Amino acid sequence: MPLSVIPFQIVHEDSKTAARIGRLSLPHGEVLTPVFMPVATQASVKAISNEELEELGITIILANAYHLYLRPGIHVIEEFGGLHNFMGWHRPILTDSGGYQVFSLAQLRSVDDDGVTFRSHIDGSEHRLTPEAATKIQEAIGADIIMCFDDVVPYPCEYRRAKEAMLRSTKWAKKCKQTHTRVDQALFGILHGSTYHDLRRQSIEMMLDIGFDGYAIGGLSVGEPKELTFELVELSMELLPKGFPRYLMGVGTPYDIARAVSLGVDMFDCVLPTRLGRTGVAFTSLGKLNLRNARYSIDHLPIDHQCSCFVCKRYSRAYIRHLMRSGEILGARLLTYHNLHFYASLMEMLREAVKNGTLAELVRQLKEIEGVEDS
Amino acid sequence: MPLSVIPFQIVHEDSKTAARIGRLSLPHGEVLTPVFMPVATQASVKAISNEELEELGITIILANAYHLYLRPGIHVIEEFGGLHNFMGWHRPILTDSGGYQVFSLAQLRSVDDDGVTFRSHIDGSEHRLTPEAATKIQEAIGADIIMCFDDVVPYPCEYRRAKEAMLRSTKWAKKCKQTHTRVDQALFGILHGSTYHDLRRQSIEMMLDIGFDGYAIGGLSVGEPKELTFELVELSMELLPKGFPRYLMGVGTPYDIARAVSLGVDMFDCVLPTRLGRTGVAFTSLGKLNLRNARYSIDHLPIDHQCSCFVCKRYSRAYIRHLMRSGEILGARLLTYHNLHFYASLMEMLREAVKNGTLAELVRQLKEIEGVEDS
Repeated sequence: MPLSVIPFQIVHEDSKTAARIGRLSLPHGEVLTPVFMPVATQASVKAISNEELEELGITIILANAYHLYLRPGIHVIEEFGGLHNFMGWHRPILTDSGGYQVFSLAQLRSVDDDGVTFRSHIDGSEHRLTPEAATKIQEAIGADIIMCFDDVVPYPCEYRRAKEAMLRSTKWAKKCKQTHTRVDQALFGILHGSTYHDLRRQSIEMMLDIGFDGYAIGGLSVGEPKELTFELVELSMELLPKGFPRYLMGVGTPYDIARAVSLGVDMFDCVLPTRLGRTGVAFTSLGKLNLRNARYSIDHLPIDHQCSCFVCKRYSRAYIRHLMRSGEILGARLLTYHNLHFYASLMEMLREAVKNGTLAELVRQLKEIEGVEDS
Repeated sequence: MPLSVIPFQIVHEDSKTAARIGRLSLPHGEVLTPVFMPVATQASVKAISNEELEELGITIILANAYHLYLRPGIHVIEEFGGLHNFMGWHRPILTDSGGYQVFSLAQLRSVDDDGVTFRSHIDGSEHRLTPEAATKIQEAIGADIIMCFDDVVPYPCEYRRAKEAMLRSTKWAKKCKQTHTRVDQALFGILHGSTYHDLRRQSIEMMLDIGFDGYAIGGLSVGEPKELTFELVELSMELLPKGFPRYLMGVGTPYDIARAVSLGVDMFDCVLPTRLGRTGVAFTSLGKLNLRNARYSIDHLPIDHQCSCFVCKRYSRAYIRHLMRSGEILGARLLTYHNLHFYASLMEMLREAVKNGTLAELVRQLKEIEGVEDS
């Protein structure tokens, strides 16, 4: 197995669970894990400025190669010497390869053993992505961590198709590794196999054999029952060697993240805090609030009286409700900021709990508020 | 003429023009004039937070009684003891009475000598506003400066209708003054008469006779030729006594504001910096830029290299263009912030120029860039 070009150091291991605290030393800065990466699909965490991300203590964001390839186009980003300069964000970035987007967002034309032909969701123009192209694109974008291009299947998925996609993703991952030349970028492999234990095992075995700087669990959190998700996460964690960062893609709620942390996951990304923020929903220490709800029309309280963010210091639920009902951009801004603050605080609390051996207790607390929603 | 409850002190008069620098001492703070008031129609300067307004040095904002009356409703604002607490903005506010909105935005049902019946532009519900009601509403909203409820006519307007509306606005203004009881609020009269010199003169005479804390020029900047606008502004300035603040409603471009300042206007409001910002247009020291223009697709420069705002320190034209094309909220945020910074700097430069006797030169410079637009 090749040594990682990107140092990942485990600084603490929980004695009671599989959780650990790690330090990823990336070209654009250090990232303490477990970490949550806010999603900047189109080179912007929706409604939030870089200044605010820094203020929130965000150490790494996720951008999307598929979106950036279509718009502004890789030639534009190359003109700036990479995405960091283009967007003025100088802390670490991870780019998703675009595999997921090609299968979920684009009009798919055809998949073959070498790659995918699809039509842009923006203008219908035809494009082709291959593992080689996706890797070159991500090298040009210049993120600190890039992902292998994969063949993604929906849930539920027949065994035959799941196996085919897993084997193809593995073959493509090998091509990504062979294509990848930038030593200042980590390349993560993506594990597949849908909901089938044996396929997941086989995927892990084969991917470890190729060897990557880190391993992501792909193809989960796509509609399957939660218990199945965590069964497969647990299985994966047990089979992966400890010394590499582990990334659970597209997860999730605070409770989901906490559970995954206790199983040994290091990295997360999810659109929940930003997307829900834009629709009026706030995460709080007592559960979720839907600020569009009429019950908040004259509510003087902040979103969460236990929260220390600038939104909770100054703005009432009633005012934020008014902004959301009136279609004011500021409503989306304030809720997104608060939700990202909630997620950042959550990750800090999780790291503290791992250090103090109190993770199980924190997971229980998060389970209690998981279902609580006011609407 | 009654004494103003709100002290307005002229601290400097230009020897070469009619411009002056003044200080309005309002319950929520001092406002140096000439001043530009960003528009917070629905209790939010679109896309901008209170924190940012403070950072920009904004000393007073404008909100709209018509909009707030319909949503969130006056009972909500009363629950908070006024708009300042409701929106968490503790510097001065001016509210427009809603006259303009009733005539431009609502479905008008009927105007009579006592008031206006209209349907809400939001849900079609029927409402009635009278000078008395508009004043009570603005007392409940609790702005530092409130405006008389007026009968607004479009441009062009027949003499007969212009005269009728002017006389009605004057009669209503008297009722507003009689209704108004809050001594911690200034009440401004609005001068009318469309584009007719004699009606403007008559309006000023009658309104001065009633006596207000300040005088606004209404019914201009509604499509009439610019030269006519400034002819009528000049006429009005000559007839108004010096000791009261003068407010030119809905104006305008940087050059328009500078010209009006040199004629003796103290206060301005306009949606231009915010509305244009949201559509991709930036004000700069060299004219306007439309950041959606393809020529900026790989432009490394800031919006305006002479600008010191946080946007120009960090973000390139190419990135902002990408954000606008991609429909990212951050694009609207960055451009709006920059434009408000441009307007705030403009007002500072105008005040400096009045002090230094260099206003005429500054007006000439602003005239030169007025027409410059890249698209």
